[in-house]
Amino acid sequence: MFSSTFKRQLIKSIRFQSTFTIPKTQMGVIFETHGGPLHYKEIPVPIPKSTEILINVKYSGVCHTDLHAWKGDWPLPAKLPLVGGHEGAGIVVAKGSAVKNFEIGDLAGIKWLNGSCMSCEFCEQGDESNCEHADLSGYTHDGSFQQYATADAIQAAKIPNGTDLAQVAPILCAGVTVYKALKTADLRAGQWVAISGAAGGLGSLAVQYAKAMGLRVLGIDGGEGKKELFTKCGGDVFIDFTKYSRDENGNEKMINDIKIATNGLGPHGVINVSVSESAISQSCSYVRSTGKVVLVGMPSGAICKSDVFQHVVKSLQIKGSYVGNRADTREALEFFNDGKVKSPIKVVGLSKLPEIYELMEQGKILGRYVVDTAY
Amino acid sequence: MFSSTFKRQLIKSIRFQSTFTIPKTQMGVIFETHGGPLHYKEIPVPIPKSTEILINVKYSGVCHTDLHAWKGDWPLPAKLPLVGGHEGAGIVVAKGSAVKNFEIGDLAGIKWLNGSCMSCEFCEQGDESNCEHADLSGYTHDGSFQQYATADAIQAAKIPNGTDLAQVAPILCAGVTVYKALKTADLRAGQWVAISGAAGGLGSLAVQYAKAMGLRVLGIDGGEGKKELFTKCGGDVFIDFTKYSRDENGNEKMINDIKIATNGLGPHGVINVSVSESAISQSCSYVRSTGKVVLVGMPSGAICKSDVFQHVVKSLQIKGSYVGNRADTREALEFFNDGKVKSPIKVVGLSKLPEIYELMEQGKILGRYVVDTAY
Amino acid sequence: MFSSTFKRQLIKSIRFQSTFTIPKTQMGVIFETHGGPLHYKEIPVPIPKSTEILINVKYSGVCHTDLHAWKGDWPLPAKLPLVGGHEGAGIVVAKGSAVKNFEIGDLAGIKWLNGSCMSCEFCEQGDESNCEHADLSGYTHDGSFQQYATADAIQAAKIPNGTDLAQVAPILCAGVTVYKALKTADLRAGQWVAISGAAGGLGSLAVQYAKAMGLRVLGIDGGEGKKELFTKCGGDVFIDFTKYSRDENGNEKMINDIKIATNGLGPHGVINVSVSESAISQSCSYVRSTGKVVLVGMPSGAICKSDVFQHVVKSLQIKGSYVGNRADTREALEFFNDGKVKSPIKVVGLSKLPEIYELMEQGKILGRYVVDTAY
Amino acid sequence: MFSSTFKRQLIKSIRFQSTFTIPKTQMGVIFETHGGPLHYKEIPVPIPKSTEILINVKYSGVCHTDLHAWKGDWPLPAKLPLVGGHEGAGIVVAKGSAVKNFEIGDLAGIKWLNGSCMSCEFCEQGDESNCEHADLSGYTHDGSFQQYATADAIQAAKIPNGTDLAQVAPILCAGVTVYKALKTADLRAGQWVAISGAAGGLGSLAVQYAKAMGLRVLGIDGGEGKKELFTKCGGDVFIDFTKYSRDENGNEKMINDIKIATNGLGPHGVINVSVSESAISQSCSYVRSTGKVVLVGMPSGAICKSDVFQHVVKSLQIKGSYVGNRADTREALEFFNDGKVKSPIKVVGLSKLPEIYELMEQGKILGRYVVDTAY
Repeated sequence: MFSSTFKRQLIKSIRFQSTFTIPKTQMGVIFETHGGPLHYKEIPVPIPKSTEILINVKYSGVCHTDLHAWKGDWPLPAKLPLVGGHEGAGIVVAKGSAVKNFEIGDLAGIKWLNGSCMSCEFCEQGDESNCEHADLSGYTHDGSFQQYATADAIQAAKIPNGTDLAQVAPILCAGVTVYKALKTADLRAGQWVAISGAAGGLGSLAVQYAKAMGLRVLGIDGGEGKKELFTKCGGDVFIDFTKYSRDENGNEKMINDIKIATNGLGPHGVINVSVSESAISQSCSYVRSTGKVVLVGMPSGAICKSDVFQHVVKSLQIKGSYVGNRADTREALEFFNDGKVKSPIKVVGLSKLPEIYELMEQGKILGRYVVDTAY
Repeated sequence: MFSSTFKRQLIKSIRFQSTFTIPKTQMGVIFETHGGPLHYKEIPVPIPKSTEILINVKYSGVCHTDLHAWKGDWPLPAKLPLVGGHEGAGIVVAKGSAVKNFEIGDLAGIKWLNGSCMSCEFCEQGDESNCEHADLSGYTHDGSFQQYATADAIQAAKIPNGTDLAQVAPILCAGVTVYKALKTADLRAGQWVAISGAAGGLGSLAVQYAKAMGLRVLGIDGGEGKKELFTKCGGDVFIDFTKYSRDENGNEKMINDIKIATNGLGPHGVINVSVSESAISQSCSYVRSTGKVVLVGMPSGAICKSDVFQHVVKSLQIKGSYVGNRADTREALEFFNDGKVKSPIKVVGLSKLPEIYELMEQGKILGRYVVDTAY
Repeated sequence: MFSSTFKRQLIKSIRFQSTFTIPKTQMGVIFETHGGPLHYKEIPVPIPKSTEILINVKYSGVCHTDLHAWKGDWPLPAKLPLVGGHEGAGIVVAKGSAVKNFEIGDLAGIKWLNGSCMSCEFCEQGDESNCEHADLSGYTHDGSFQQYATADAIQAAKIPNGTDLAQVAPILCAGVTVYKALKTADLRAGQWVAISGAAGGLGSLAVQYAKAMGLRVLGIDGGEGKKELFTKCGGDVFIDFTKYSRDENGNEKMINDIKIATNGLGPHGVINVSVSESAISQSCSYVRSTGKVVLVGMPSGAICKSDVFQHVVKSLQIKGSYVGNRADTREALEFFNDGKVKSPIKVVGLSKLPEIYELMEQGKILGRYVVDTAY
Repeated sequence: MFSSTFKRQLIKSIRFQSTFTIPKTQMGVIFETHGGPLHYKEIPVPIPKSTEILINVKYSGVCHTDLHAWKGDWPLPAKLPLVGGHEGAGIVVAKGSAVKNFEIGDLAGIKWLNGSCMSCEFCEQGDESNCEHADLSGYTHDGSFQQYATADAIQAAKIPNGTDLAQVAPILCAGVTVYKALKTADLRAGQWVAISGAAGGLGSLAVQYAKAMGLRVLGIDGGEGKKELFTKCGGDVFIDFTKYSRDENGNEKMINDIKIATNGLGPHGVINVSVSESAISQSCSYVRSTGKVVLVGMPSGAICKSDVFQHVVKSLQIKGSYVGNRADTREALEFFNDGKVKSPIKVVGLSKLPEIYELMEQGKILGRYVVDTAY
């Protein structure tokens, strides 16, 4: 008989199969304290559990959530030390003994939801992201800012062979998130959706998904450059908020213009990807009666305020939309693979991550950064 | 040929049929200015249009909305002078030439929604109460605080022969409203619903409807008397808010107790019939993830506040529920007629209406007042 | 005082208003017996009721249902003598006193559902076409094969100013019907729908609506010409049933090819506009598990057969889709007005109607005939 | 280094933990060929995989499906030799290393769906029973007619401590199946559901679930004894089909009586648990327009036939309902645990299974048999 310690070590060493040669260490970006230094350094390659796959991450998108994970300013404790990142695309190089849905060599993606219990009330109904035992990539589980990362096989995204791994990376979080928000708005082809923050990173993806879903899209954002990008994404009507005075009258006039542009009744749904607290409340005023206001962005400490009288008499719904589940991910990827959604990215080396965070904090990011784990 | 004025008068006089003898005047309560005197006096009997029925109102419930109509403190202009009332039950004594769905002698009910255009986007999808041309009983159309009132035949409620007209009156608004709110919460038999304000006029009806729908009901209200009424209505778990300290800790403890009582996860839905602004925000904290918070009561000027982070991460929905449509009314009445819902009423003469308003303003009303139009 | 007969006549003469000069007689096509002669002759102009509009019909589509109405081979009694037609587009020239949603001079459309009671359980929930008192144009109510026709104002279709009345005519029934069928299939943008009979009159409209709704479309029909039309309408994959042998093996192979073309699992929904009984049963075999098979066409005496084991294990739904309601009509017209759906028509004089019926009976119709009521 | 064979054996022996003493062999009923002898004999105790639990089965219900598995008369290949049974209730005595949702000593249930891939389109949306890789207890995976059986931990049912394991056994399949069928019918509290075969094993459970869901229940079955059972279960209206002549007229009269009993329009939904082919077609005739006919029972070779004209004009839905998913199971158990549903059982020793099959084949079973694995 063997000692139990020996058994455990033995199992660890043998319970995954691989035809790839997997190194013992790798390069990754890790931090020990919230807001502390981001080290690009050699770290151990993680070992997959029996239900996990090991992914050789080639590219990873950088999301605003990564900044929150590093700063630790959300009311949800993160693991420390932590390797961030939750938009990783790569190749399956090893898998646990219980994994049946991936083969070594398949392409796979790491999403925000790394794994969940699959047996609570939320997981049962496809709301895995609401699972109380949700394991989050780059937050409670080391993420995609390293060359090798583990992912629960059931939650990992399947990426078809031949996909451009750099392009697809931002779809895994940004794309899925806006697609989920549009599904949450529960609109019918031909209806009007307003996208508040229409020309930002999330917004420009939202416009494309909305058009692919047969919706009419009104975008709200500021400036001529934004308008151009919006139009290029296929949007129908652009409202430039910089053209309205900042006082009560300007607000009234903008709300009125939005209604006029949408059959006089306002859009049937609003996707709030802008992180402005006042834009959220405003959206309750211009949305059509019986319409749906969807909250996506999560500015720290923001409060959504809605006038109760209006909320009731207009029979409004304000719906929070978190990240997508497995089905949402599959569907969002299909739109991408069909060429209906394009993601404008800027690729830099993983070692440059600290500089991206800096730009992000300064609000200087245009489009989506994707890091190449090779350098 | 006839002059057009003559024609008009002629048509008015003949376009409805009746076998009843209808007087030219009647007793009703009318006011000329918001907050002004409420006159119980002789007024003309209204003449139904070709699409209307004339109802000999026997009883009418008195609703908090009637107080708002009189005071004029809602951001929605009312007609003046006005006969209030929108929970009237009586007998059809005349009908316009285009009316096919009522016969003289049928029982009928007057609801808040007196009529709507039936051809706008909202009417088309059964959201008649959101119609921009909605005609509201006791608000934009003289209501049920008179002996004879007109109602659009399509919107008027059908009441089966043999129904107790005094008992059914409050179902026409209070009953329909809470039933609609429960439908809006979109719950499944076996799930938990919390009713905030569970032992008030609306609340005690909500508890009964919820039980008839197979839900498990947690009620929130204050005091032993309230607990008793709640239990009598069939409620499952009662939370007495007066037993918790008014500070942060008390709040935390109460939220925790609500969760423990509902499988540890909180109720799947919350019906806010209490008119407390803070109770609404609180309900966002104890509702289960993916749960639905329904707004029903409309305290003047109240704002519904929800933490955006929690709203998104818990994937909450805050849904405004206004009054029911024709289908909701029919269904709510069926539950009443099946004996599954009882309405505890107190009958007084219509001439006592000013005194009821006074009690209402002082918050001294227990249960539902119903006025008898005969005295 | 007036005698009641006099009153009634008087009311008839005055209860509608008009600024148009309306003749007392007009040209129309009428028949006295099922299958009997179709007379193109002078007939009286009908007088609208207080809730009706009078439409000066300019164009009317000719539908297969008109043939059934004439032949009387459906288990639903039609009025006799009868003026057929239920796809009429024209101008409102008069309206009853209770009509508020149309003005004289507006464009309006006559649909299959001329009017309904608006107060039964079906009407209440927007299923007006299932109303037991449904009044059907060209079936129980004289239809659009005449120059002036009446329509219930609530059910009549609103047509925006400037619309090409000949082009829009077939949308009023054919367009609405396939759009409703697609809504009944309840699919999500990105999913696969199969259209059985994809290049016929209904099918080619269905393909266009499906694409506008973001669906992927597989069409089934026979012949190169059909394939071309399908592709022109925007369809994705065409299955030519003439290329498969008519025996069991051919059937198996075709089912297999349909599955391969749709991710290996079959389409998520099937719209059966073909009138082949066997095609309906076949669709239960190739539809994806949990998929929806929609029945639209109504071949006389046809039976839909489904293997119970397969039906249960695949959790299939077979859904009948009848004509659209007011909302469906409005929406279907919006897609047309947006230019997303085009209707290929052939215009001839109303007097040629008997010849069109003959061609229709011989199955020689390609595309949609529209009659011009002017000659 | 170890040889791979050695490693595999080693892993098998150690990858599950247990504090129970688990024997190497046990008693069970096994057969080698379809329709061949059923041996009650000593067989090996199965070893759970890393994602499985090992359940010491105390009781197992006997379902009609077990008979089909033994006879092999369904168009779905079963494993051979086979231990049948898929309604097993017992205690978790061991679990694989990846299992997190069960502890040793927990109560657990074996359902028809033993396990599924959890990553296909069907599993993703909660339609695990439609998974192409579904593993079926007592069909493709040795089932509950043995003392120790394995089950995928994610799919295994959680049974609260203190539950009567004999009573709960039939809920795991029969209860869940009828509950799922009622959910598939998608009815609202207060609506009418007809249950065809209302007093059989499935039917009597269906009546209880329907009442707990707030529905009004019309039952169809034959004989006074059946009527009594139906009434005891809480049903509202009983139609005894033996009281109608078997010809066309009797059929017409029965359909008419069913409609009269349900507001004149027919039930909003029908649950077909009877295995009569003609009863299924009949249900399409008496169901209300826009109603739902649900197929549950699967008589070998049966065909569901529906008149296309009626199917379309009444806008009917015929929906196949297969077994429940994880959520359905949890919910069905909650109704049982709340005492709202009782299962009338007859307990015999597992060794008597062959005799139960014989009775079942002869149609002599009344109520549900449950086998005790102890003898």
